[in-house]
Amino acid sequence: MTALLDPHEFEAALRQIGAERYHNLHPFHKLLHGGHLTREQVQAWALNRYYYQSKIPVKDALILSRLDSPELRREWRRRIIDHDGDGTEPGGIEKWIALGTGVGLDRGYVISGKGILPATRFAVDAYVHFVAERSLLEAVASSLTELFSPNVIGERVAGMLAHYPFVTPATLAYFDKRPVQAKQDSDFALRYCIDNARRPEDQEAVLDALRFKCDVLWAQLDALYFAYVEPGLTPPQAWRPGEGQAGGDRA
Amino acid sequence: MTALLDPHEFEAALRQIGAERYHNLHPFHKLLHGGHLTREQVQAWALNRYYYQSKIPVKDALILSRLDSPELRREWRRRIIDHDGDGTEPGGIEKWIALGTGVGLDRGYVISGKGILPATRFAVDAYVHFVAERSLLEAVASSLTELFSPNVIGERVAGMLAHYPFVTPATLAYFDKRPVQAKQDSDFALRYCIDNARRPEDQEAVLDALRFKCDVLWAQLDALYFAYVEPGLTPPQAWRPGEGQAGGDRA
Repeated sequence: MTALLDPHEFEAALRQIGAERYHNLHPFHKLLHGGHLTREQVQAWALNRYYYQSKIPVKDALILSRLDSPELRREWRRRIIDHDGDGTEPGGIEKWIALGTGVGLDRGYVISGKGILPATRFAVDAYVHFVAERSLLEAVASSLTELFSPNVIGERVAGMLAHYPFVTPATLAYFDKRPVQAKQDSDFALRYCIDNARRPEDQEAVLDALRFKCDVLWAQLDALYFAYVEPGLTPPQAWRPGEGQAGGDRA
Repeated sequence: MTALLDPHEFEAALRQIGAERYHNLHPFHKLLHGGHLTREQVQAWALNRYYYQSKIPVKDALILSRLDSPELRREWRRRIIDHDGDGTEPGGIEKWIALGTGVGLDRGYVISGKGILPATRFAVDAYVHFVAERSLLEAVASSLTELFSPNVIGERVAGMLAHYPFVTPATLAYFDKRPVQAKQDSDFALRYCIDNARRPEDQEAVLDALRFKCDVLWAQLDALYFAYVEPGLTPPQAWRPGEGQAGGDRA
């Protein structure tokens, strides 16, 4: 076991994990942002990623259920409102559905989750189980990938708008508020982890939780790349180009 | 919802799922059995598959905890003995470790699970969670892939012995008893499912559980193919050829 890191060293160790393992480094993201994907491949990404989005408030509700003060719960509750909306403004999930329909998928098909890759489901469900089963500190720490998302979102939106004629600013409205939300969320989670990881083994658990979460994101892109880019071996019953289209017959 | 199938139709529907989705149809298995993999690729398979093997008694213990008669529990208990051994004869897990060391991996490294692909962990853990969370009928039904394994094992052993000079009959001893065990286990599970799925929706749940389990096996091979065959993009911190070798320094 290593020695206790001071707050700056600990934060640096967390950020180093992002520098090495955050999914912006994945070949699929490079293809996505660089304009090298077909519309069908972008559809596959939007469809599968919806399943991840749809489970975020579920995992946040599990964390909420484990926080023991109104102050902490109010802080964490904001994440759920951001994703589920307040009944007037659309939340993140509704905006992700709009992203799916914006690139040509049928709304009902996206929501059904029918055509997602089994590996997407396994990775996302692993995340939900993680926050239910591990320590609260680890559950909070698994959200720290948001430390790395604001920059990536800028790259993604600019790249997709520049390269894909079928993508409009309205399609990508999901990302408008995410940098500010992610900054606010991750500032809090980082502070929580720094304050509560008081032993070397706690710090190691936090670092491992962040590695785990990077794996969850990375594995989703591995599966997309494998099924829809190269070698393009789509598992049985997973979505195939042409299915689940807006106005299509497998809606 | 479809009509209730008679026992023969129901069994035929289950076997049809195997004919379409069992992992012997996966390109990775074809490469493995056909002698087209390198020793390192076989090591990757042995290493990752060990994690699956190691969780089988865990998932069977969860099912055991849900069975409500001594007769049923005795029947299911045999599966755990088969994998964990009786303290004198090595069980299936010990034999799988021998398969790993037989192809050159370090015993401690295999057991540690350190280098496995995140997608392996997510798929296997999804199976464990499935048997804990779904109905008992679905949990039992998820074992029905054993209906399809005896024939595949024959192909696998013959193919591997014929093609790989580094594979010996002792290395593959795991498979010696599996066809008989799998037949006995799956005969029981099939009878249980036929007897207990009395409504069309129960039958559909059983069929879906078997599809789910096929996905669990299939996704593991997708991940192996992606990381170690084509395009060969190994996720961060996953095993790389040369690591975890018998007598090696990352043992």
